[in-house]
Amino acid sequence: MNNTIKHQLEHRTIREFKDKEIPMEWMKEFVEVIRRTASSTGMQTYSIIRVTSTDLKEKIAKVCGQEYVKRAPELLIFIADAFRNNQIAEELTGKEYSESHDMDRFFQGWTDSCLAAQNLTNAVESKGLGAVYLGSILNDAEKIIDLLKLPKLTFPVLGVGFRYPNQEPQIKPRMEMKLRLFENEYVTFENYLRELEDYNEEMQTYYDLREANRRVDSFSQQVVTRLKNTLENRTKILKVIMKQSFELKIN
Amino acid sequence: MNNTIKHQLEHRTIREFKDKEIPMEWMKEFVEVIRRTASSTGMQTYSIIRVTSTDLKEKIAKVCGQEYVKRAPELLIFIADAFRNNQIAEELTGKEYSESHDMDRFFQGWTDSCLAAQNLTNAVESKGLGAVYLGSILNDAEKIIDLLKLPKLTFPVLGVGFRYPNQEPQIKPRMEMKLRLFENEYVTFENYLRELEDYNEEMQTYYDLREANRRVDSFSQQVVTRLKNTLENRTKILKVIMKQSFELKIN
Repeated sequence: MNNTIKHQLEHRTIREFKDKEIPMEWMKEFVEVIRRTASSTGMQTYSIIRVTSTDLKEKIAKVCGQEYVKRAPELLIFIADAFRNNQIAEELTGKEYSESHDMDRFFQGWTDSCLAAQNLTNAVESKGLGAVYLGSILNDAEKIIDLLKLPKLTFPVLGVGFRYPNQEPQIKPRMEMKLRLFENEYVTFENYLRELEDYNEEMQTYYDLREANRRVDSFSQQVVTRLKNTLENRTKILKVIMKQSFELKIN
Repeated sequence: MNNTIKHQLEHRTIREFKDKEIPMEWMKEFVEVIRRTASSTGMQTYSIIRVTSTDLKEKIAKVCGQEYVKRAPELLIFIADAFRNNQIAEELTGKEYSESHDMDRFFQGWTDSCLAAQNLTNAVESKGLGAVYLGSILNDAEKIIDLLKLPKLTFPVLGVGFRYPNQEPQIKPRMEMKLRLFENEYVTFENYLRELEDYNEEMQTYYDLREANRRVDSFSQQVVTRLKNTLENRTKILKVIMKQSFELKIN
């Protein structure tokens, strides 16, 4: 097993960081890793906002509902971006391109953003640093759009906070691949709870730093709790996507 | 610069592979890397279909409109999967969960799928192997759903083909980060074509293995061509997402 894979298998979310800078050279490498990430049809349909303002970090932390976000020493927000290529096409031809507004462009941008974010995370972790994904920016996508002054045809996808870890969480138990890796066709199970017995038990031995002093729920119970705690804002994400001038084309 | 980052900076798409197996041990490592990838709120809202059937590969290649896909020695399709957790919650409580159908779950699954795919790609490339992303499975998402027998509340996101490279493509030029990495707020430019002059020129020195014997277009021209060649099927992706029982909630 090489070092890349060793680090990948040791992945855990780091939410608290040391007050210590990283070498400038590393940051340059990370940016170059983002830049070299595969991108759908080479169109590079994504942008990144590096958040350095303390005030802005606090506002983003409020959206996330997670106060540690304001302490993230390095914070990048990945943006699906069909705006730039739309501008390029319009400048080059003097015409408008309704195609820039379609959901294909949107999803390409979403995928590009995620690939770049994971590529960054791998680079970060390869240096012995730690990272946290912030999907919670979508708790209020409209607010994030406003805070980062995102133009039409762009959309926030996820954030990554990183630097030197100041905590050492356990590696989180994961579901057996038997339940999620299939050959040639999807396989359903008659009784998921029976299949999950071992995993549910293993999960209850996991010590979550965010909920110290109590055992965590079984995975099955966590699924139910998550479904109960649904945020209406998040379920209506398409309304915000429309507001950003994307055309849903559902008729 | 460590080996992980060295490989990341050498990323290029590999579309042709040698007829040579990889050690079983490596495949196990790759699967474990997928399994250990970060996942939104720990819910593991994704599954993977490993395509081993030659017939199925041919059918997928047709959807992709890229015949080399049928020769991909290893082919994994990443699936956004809200079905499994829906089943788990229903089994545990005997109730139905309409929340399983919302777009938040859908996007969590999409993001999870992309993170896992990029994590896999990094592991693959760290071994000196090569990979190709297949966003082109979305040329006909409905057909892929049919071929892979995907149940409701699942959706194909992207494919990854990989193994020993049988070609050595140039590294593809990428846009300057000045145009896509901003501090605290999005920056628009008055004249993108002027900003892109060097990049457009650099792109024309790039030798694309898929279009031998001719210089490739400037990036700006590629953007226009891509917008012109829009596939209607792809722009109507939300209709297929609805068919898979997700609720758009746009009213």
